[in-house]
Amino acid sequence: MPELLPRARQAHESVFSRMSRLAAQHGAVNLGQGFPAGAPPTFLLDAARRAVGTVDQYTPPAGLPALRDALGADLGVDGADVIVTAGATEALAALALSLYGLGEGGVPDEVLLIEPVFDVYLPQARLAGARPVTVPMTLGPGGWSLDLAALRAAVTPRTRAILLNSPFNPTGTVFSRAELLDIVEIARAHDLWLISDEVYDELYFGERPAALRTLAPERTFTVGSAGKRLEATGWRVGWVACPPGVAAGLTGMRQFMSFCSAAPLQAAVAGALPLARASGFYEELRSEYAGRRDLLAQGLRSLGATVYEPQGTYFLTAQRPGWQAEALVQAAGVALIPGEAFYADHPCPPGLLRAAFCKSREDIERALERLGRVEQTRPA
Amino acid sequence: MPELLPRARQAHESVFSRMSRLAAQHGAVNLGQGFPAGAPPTFLLDAARRAVGTVDQYTPPAGLPALRDALGADLGVDGADVIVTAGATEALAALALSLYGLGEGGVPDEVLLIEPVFDVYLPQARLAGARPVTVPMTLGPGGWSLDLAALRAAVTPRTRAILLNSPFNPTGTVFSRAELLDIVEIARAHDLWLISDEVYDELYFGERPAALRTLAPERTFTVGSAGKRLEATGWRVGWVACPPGVAAGLTGMRQFMSFCSAAPLQAAVAGALPLARASGFYEELRSEYAGRRDLLAQGLRSLGATVYEPQGTYFLTAQRPGWQAEALVQAAGVALIPGEAFYADHPCPPGLLRAAFCKSREDIERALERLGRVEQTRPA
Ligand SMILES: Cc1ncc(COP(=O)(O)O)c(C=O)c1O
Ligand SMILES: Cc1ncc(COP(=O)(O)O)c(C=O)c1O
Repeated sequence: MPELLPRARQAHESVFSRMSRLAAQHGAVNLGQGFPAGAPPTFLLDAARRAVGTVDQYTPPAGLPALRDALGADLGVDGADVIVTAGATEALAALALSLYGLGEGGVPDEVLLIEPVFDVYLPQARLAGARPVTVPMTLGPGGWSLDLAALRAAVTPRTRAILLNSPFNPTGTVFSRAELLDIVEIARAHDLWLISDEVYDELYFGERPAALRTLAPERTFTVGSAGKRLEATGWRVGWVACPPGVAAGLTGMRQFMSFCSAAPLQAAVAGALPLARASGFYEELRSEYAGRRDLLAQGLRSLGATVYEPQGTYFLTAQRPGWQAEALVQAAGVALIPGEAFYADHPCPPGLLRAAFCKSREDIERALERLGRVEQTRPA
Repeated sequence: MPELLPRARQAHESVFSRMSRLAAQHGAVNLGQGFPAGAPPTFLLDAARRAVGTVDQYTPPAGLPALRDALGADLGVDGADVIVTAGATEALAALALSLYGLGEGGVPDEVLLIEPVFDVYLPQARLAGARPVTVPMTLGPGGWSLDLAALRAAVTPRTRAILLNSPFNPTGTVFSRAELLDIVEIARAHDLWLISDEVYDELYFGERPAALRTLAPERTFTVGSAGKRLEATGWRVGWVACPPGVAAGLTGMRQFMSFCSAAPLQAAVAGALPLARASGFYEELRSEYAGRRDLLAQGLRSLGATVYEPQGTYFLTAQRPGWQAEALVQAAGVALIPGEAFYADHPCPPGLLRAAFCKSREDIERALERLGRVEQTRPA
């Protein structure tokens, strides 16, 4: 029998899927994978129920015109520069395949990533034929910080793009305007693309994060996700806002991947985006999640963990030497993501874990209680 | 400014999207792109309205377990060997990326395709790094036939797979069991994968087509589409049934493309598949489309076209020297697909067009009337 190519055999189950599977298997409280506990908002569900039976056939590959327009208005860009994708994941895959690959003479292009790194970026870059190059964040008593000198030093003549994520999964870091301006300067000096993964753009706890595209519109792709914004991660409606003139080429790539996104759900998101803005939905979400973040952070601290306060996303990172995610899911019945899952090239800080607080208060409390019980029964 | 890679710049708008766009622009009756005129069946819509608000978060990348089980039962395979994808298009892309690419020493692998060829196969093979090699069908007074000798002769040491489609878009050909057995023999002799695109598996007008996987289960991937089966092309729920032992590797690939298919629509399809079987939905669809096929075929014949009777799909091919799709959309207000769109390497039979009859009887009649008017006003 023939075999799958090595690039397919390398692509194994993601840690998020694996921990969700283990959580189900062991009846664990799942603070692992980043999907919300609650249902999406009623205005979104109602719009979807109306669209089913009305908008059921192929849409243009770039997306339903109404959705592209709604996204243009929401993001402050021209709708013609926005492409709808099957989740942010597909947007990132289409960008990887379009921006970097095997370069001249069969030498891989390079893309710069920040470590700890959202796992999908690495296999997507490799699938494209490129080499992902990671630059580690610094972890000190004050928390996580970007190492701009290391980023600058990592640029080579083969570098084609920098892939950033702010608010940042897993640490919850929001990059400052000054940091972004430094990154733009690097990109301009070396003529690099900038991919800005902003799926958590509405999920921040302090000031509104600066959008990278406003600082370098000529080279920035902004990736977003209705799944993250509107609490419907399974709907697979994402997008990418492109630098002017680039959308047509990227649409071609996207069309040969999944042709178009789910038509009735695109229609529902088109209707819901302005409502979400007008109704204060994002503000409510932020204040609700701020409360759950505090609940989780304080609980973990009282169990002896060091917690790094996130400025955005619905994740936090914590360190507790001795805690090990694979063991905890079985021993404590609590699923967390091991920090190692976010490290490809550099050593992971010891005992690092990611915990999601997009779960119900009850689940967060139950998880803390269970972790506390394991602590008590631990042999001295 | 940096540029998109050549592989992205090559990926231009598909002829189907383009003709739909031109049809809208010129107010033309659209017998071009293959999406049905009617709404999906009520049992499917009701299931979707129930799933929205219930099944809204990430599913496993291989698909909702209930859908994999329903597909296993429907196709007569183990649900564990079935992967749900974002339409058949994504299934075909994941297979291309997993089965062929740049081979040893940077020489492209080859995949054999039958011409006229469904357009998506070519860019997907090239995107994977492989070389698509097309083998033309023969067109005689009796219609289209497969040239098995040419297929056999096209195999080289670099061939990795044969990609078949039956019922066949655009000609409507259904390959016979004897033809499929010959293909299996070729595949076994050279240890090739078989990709069997069976998105029109329930759309046939004579005997039920043989499923290639039953003849070569060890090497056949069967690709299917809920969009085609259940008249909801925009829902993007497709699948691939894999040879035993291969699903896990392919799931990894699929997970880095769009992670999972739209969750509520997966749930709806899971519920609808057994209902479609039990309620006689497919039989009704076949008899309805047989009537529309006859309406369109007779109408085109009476306008002087040669029509090749399809044995399956909702397309037919016809030849009428002087008819030219780009001109007709404007002059007649009827959108058809030019035959050239299905030819990459060999000459297209002159005046070949593809017409879809998954449109309303009214639209088919209106299109025939408009085509008739253009014929009358043609300068002698
Ligand atoms: C940083 C980041 N980017 C992208 C994604 C994927 O988003 P989507 O579900 O829209 O594909 C996630 C999901 O967790 C994420 O955390
Ligand atoms: C032969 C063939 N394969 C695959 C597809 C794509 O199917 P889907 O809409 O499920 O992606 C089509 C659509 O027209 C087709 O004709």
